[in-house]
Amino acid sequence: MKKAGILGGGQLGRMLLQAAINYPVETFVMENDPACPSAHLANHFIKGDISNFDEVYNFGKGLDVLTIEIEAVNEDALEKLEAEGVKIYPRPSALRTIKSKLLQKEFYQKNQVPTSAFVITKNKQELLSLREFLPAVHKLDKGGYDGKGVQVIKKVEDLEKGFDETAVLEKMVHIKKELAIIIAVSETGETAIYPPVDMIFDQSLNLLSHQIAPADVPEKVFWKAEAIALRVVKELKSPGIFAVELFVDIDDNVLVNETAPRVHNSGHHTIEACYSSQFDMLWRILLGYPLGNTDQLLPAAIVNLVGENNFTGPVLYEGLEKVLAMDNVFVHIYGKTTTKPGRKMGHVTILSSEKQELVHKANQIKHTLYVKSA
Amino acid sequence: MKKAGILGGGQLGRMLLQAAINYPVETFVMENDPACPSAHLANHFIKGDISNFDEVYNFGKGLDVLTIEIEAVNEDALEKLEAEGVKIYPRPSALRTIKSKLLQKEFYQKNQVPTSAFVITKNKQELLSLREFLPAVHKLDKGGYDGKGVQVIKKVEDLEKGFDETAVLEKMVHIKKELAIIIAVSETGETAIYPPVDMIFDQSLNLLSHQIAPADVPEKVFWKAEAIALRVVKELKSPGIFAVELFVDIDDNVLVNETAPRVHNSGHHTIEACYSSQFDMLWRILLGYPLGNTDQLLPAAIVNLVGENNFTGPVLYEGLEKVLAMDNVFVHIYGKTTTKPGRKMGHVTILSSEKQELVHKANQIKHTLYVKSA
Repeated sequence: MKKAGILGGGQLGRMLLQAAINYPVETFVMENDPACPSAHLANHFIKGDISNFDEVYNFGKGLDVLTIEIEAVNEDALEKLEAEGVKIYPRPSALRTIKSKLLQKEFYQKNQVPTSAFVITKNKQELLSLREFLPAVHKLDKGGYDGKGVQVIKKVEDLEKGFDETAVLEKMVHIKKELAIIIAVSETGETAIYPPVDMIFDQSLNLLSHQIAPADVPEKVFWKAEAIALRVVKELKSPGIFAVELFVDIDDNVLVNETAPRVHNSGHHTIEACYSSQFDMLWRILLGYPLGNTDQLLPAAIVNLVGENNFTGPVLYEGLEKVLAMDNVFVHIYGKTTTKPGRKMGHVTILSSEKQELVHKANQIKHTLYVKSA
Repeated sequence: MKKAGILGGGQLGRMLLQAAINYPVETFVMENDPACPSAHLANHFIKGDISNFDEVYNFGKGLDVLTIEIEAVNEDALEKLEAEGVKIYPRPSALRTIKSKLLQKEFYQKNQVPTSAFVITKNKQELLSLREFLPAVHKLDKGGYDGKGVQVIKKVEDLEKGFDETAVLEKMVHIKKELAIIIAVSETGETAIYPPVDMIFDQSLNLLSHQIAPADVPEKVFWKAEAIALRVVKELKSPGIFAVELFVDIDDNVLVNETAPRVHNSGHHTIEACYSSQFDMLWRILLGYPLGNTDQLLPAAIVNLVGENNFTGPVLYEGLEKVLAMDNVFVHIYGKTTTKPGRKMGHVTILSSEKQELVHKANQIKHTLYVKSA
């Protein structure tokens, strides 16, 4: 039985371990928090710091294959492990490119992947001279995550809010739509692409409202998006699951926003909606099996369950029973014991052949189920 | 978060724990073998003997709710726990009725549930006087499982093979077809019924070949089967998941063969084929949530993976990659480290709108994937 390790023990690891149950594999998880969502679901849980060279190296050295569920890992250790013969999917080289906003933008540029224009800034002084480039978005080169390390700079006065360390200033795109495409790359370089996902934002709150797959886009946009996403993963030259996030601008240009080298929130509906989910697919890749079928059985929507503002502490799911009484709705609770504002605590998937029903139920769920604390 | 216990740690527990991952629940498993398929997937694994009063009682007393994945548990301990306020689903009373072939048959008789004629035999001497009743099947009152404790007695000469302890002699039914129906019963007595499953036997080997759901039966048989299965679970007066196995005879009479008070092999396709699987459904029942939707998205077949004859030892899945390359096929490996002849090691589910494709792929899988040992 192959030994497979996962660095990180959050909800992505949890759902990955849920899919592992179908396969002959011995699972290992490393994460600092023994109460994390994944710890109890692995054959072996190792408490450890995934950003520490020695701990990652020691964790990985007896394994056949190693993957990540968060980018903030020690890639030097992964490189050493790879050199010693452990399969690391995604490859450390791809991870290194993606972890740095700067390298990631340069990678797109070098490979003729359409992406928004950008300038690299080493400090705030350099930023202040870029008035002509506004409106723009300033992104920290390293360490940004889930909206942290990102600053919108619309006007000259906003320049003050920029970062005083290496960062990328990206020209703001006039966004009509945001898409995400999940792609699987096998050990042998074969690819399988999931139908694109519409990321629908709540304009008033500037927050992701819900996601719908397949996305509602003209055929021209669809083909462009698929071609671009495929181009990205081919050039990353690494097996794994990749989520390519894309902007569609008002002229129907498609631009890459960013890529994640792992299973991704925008692919959670694949658990119920697709023959092979993104989690199932990653196991096929890690274990060297043929890729699965990415076809969707039915259109799907995802609503994320995040901690309500003003609630911090032991979690309480208000309205859960009402949502469980709704037909064709699938609740996924991530098993985190405490909530805080904005924390990802679960998601709900809706299946329906009627797009209107998906939107209706997504809204209904958002007004029924709240993550609060006791 | 509710504390839920499972007695037994086999593949049914494993798939139950896989479904638990979506819910806010703290899971406990008791089983004697720490290398069993479920042990590493529970929040808490307790090594213990599920047939021992004290061990079951001590395991259950701090829990909110307790279920079983095998009938061979100590029901006296469950009764004490129930009296002390722990929810036991299935109820010990239902479990007691089902665990005894004698009580089970009497239960059907008392409740006008059609079942084959039977005689109770206390010893072999009583059996020998029942020549007029042949052909028949002799079933041990207690302890039979997976074909053990069952003896087919066609002719007078076979009477010698009968049991010399309390047993039930059932008149042999002229079987046209075998069906299974999974039914969910909620805490409040609501029921949800899954489409019936065709259990298709290999006549030459006298072994289950594959299962197809929904079953291919005339409407009249369908309604009879559903009505009978519903009658059984209503009279058992217990929340839980029940699998009612039925015979359809050559005159299209429907007779109950036996009932299992738990998730069941004949319902494994519900994981992929139904909105709410039998495992998801059991969690809804255990945690007091509304019942899920039993509708099937697509017709499905199940092929069981059992240990090949002449192979005992560390398991090896020959042909696994070929099966994983087939479209719309879902492999479930149970994580047992050693195989032996006839041991249930996994199953494969096939989805297709074309029944012919289901049968074709089921046969293909049976001639591709073999459970052997190294």
